[in-house]
Amino acid sequence: VTGLTLYGYFRSSAAFRVRIALNLKGLDYEQQSVHLAQGHQLRAEYRAINPQALVPVLVDGEHRMTQSLAIIEYLDELHPEPALLPQEPLARQRVRSLAQIVASDIHPINNTRVLKYLGSQLKIEEPARNTWYRHWIAEGLAVIEKRLIDEAGTGVFCHGDAPTIADCCLVPQIFNARRYGSDLNPYPTVMHIYERCMALPAFDRAAPLNQQDADN
Amino acid sequence: VTGLTLYGYFRSSAAFRVRIALNLKGLDYEQQSVHLAQGHQLRAEYRAINPQALVPVLVDGEHRMTQSLAIIEYLDELHPEPALLPQEPLARQRVRSLAQIVASDIHPINNTRVLKYLGSQLKIEEPARNTWYRHWIAEGLAVIEKRLIDEAGTGVFCHGDAPTIADCCLVPQIFNARRYGSDLNPYPTVMHIYERCMALPAFDRAAPLNQQDADN
Repeated sequence: VTGLTLYGYFRSSAAFRVRIALNLKGLDYEQQSVHLAQGHQLRAEYRAINPQALVPVLVDGEHRMTQSLAIIEYLDELHPEPALLPQEPLARQRVRSLAQIVASDIHPINNTRVLKYLGSQLKIEEPARNTWYRHWIAEGLAVIEKRLIDEAGTGVFCHGDAPTIADCCLVPQIFNARRYGSDLNPYPTVMHIYERCMALPAFDRAAPLNQQDADN
Repeated sequence: VTGLTLYGYFRSSAAFRVRIALNLKGLDYEQQSVHLAQGHQLRAEYRAINPQALVPVLVDGEHRMTQSLAIIEYLDELHPEPALLPQEPLARQRVRSLAQIVASDIHPINNTRVLKYLGSQLKIEEPARNTWYRHWIAEGLAVIEKRLIDEAGTGVFCHGDAPTIADCCLVPQIFNARRYGSDLNPYPTVMHIYERCMALPAFDRAAPLNQQDADN
């Protein structure tokens, strides 16, 4: 019995990362859906859970945790098997740096609140917002593709032959890319790894359309 | 003798984070300046070092490392004293989550490449770009201020009585905020911690104007 509750949303790629990690660790968790498309993350009752008004939040007993990568590191420290980071410091650095390309340099720039600001404050129309979205994905995935090709650490997954934090970040980003019509043909190595991940039940069960709130 | 070389730029807050961490660890390092304002990060010779065309890069012997937080975690694993993360998993989660608010949810949205896209692709004029810049800082710092007030882990620094990765991220963000004229009065707890950090030589020596390339 873990007593874990995940506040998320089926389409949130940051929540998706944490669902993958929880599934890989074999941990049971309840889910609380926060309807991002209807702005429920901005309600006072949710801000009391996370003042940043973002998902995910993982609640473990009396402890509330935010920021997906910090949550996954916590899960990996508390439940070491199967490891989501390799053992050797340089390899850990590599995995974390691949994860951060998604988690810092693609996803936050395309977050709902940023797209809203572009529309409402800067009067950028939807086609230009979608071009923006695909631009930052293309910038990031091109670098990940090149690194996966060039670097010796790449294996069946982003690093070696077991999923790591890097795969937990990469796979949800591909779902976002497809939703916005990104051309994924330039990233065959990324897509091979994506397919291998999605063949694992831990990834498949975490996918947006397999969540209970997916019909919202 | 460490053989460390840091590719950075005096004003880059991501490079600034790594300079702080290196100084706190007492590690010697050479610096290579990449003139971001003149676009030198986009040159082929720099892309050969980092295909993402961002700073910082830390070179340790034959190994090149990217992504500031992943670099700092590496330094903390390889050189455990003084620790830049607390020992207990929940405390580590807290510190990493505070760091990620800056590293994922403020800084990348205000990165040079994003500001350039706003100007050149979306024709957003400088005043509106500066409002954008201050908006994301205000969103992030308000949350950090609230958490520092509300959460028991806060001490002399963001967590407890020694600097952590959270302080390494927070302090450079304050420099950026000041450069763009952000109102910092709403964040007194943040600013107290900032002042305590800047009283330490490791932070002061890492500051932009104390770098050799600062007159560029």
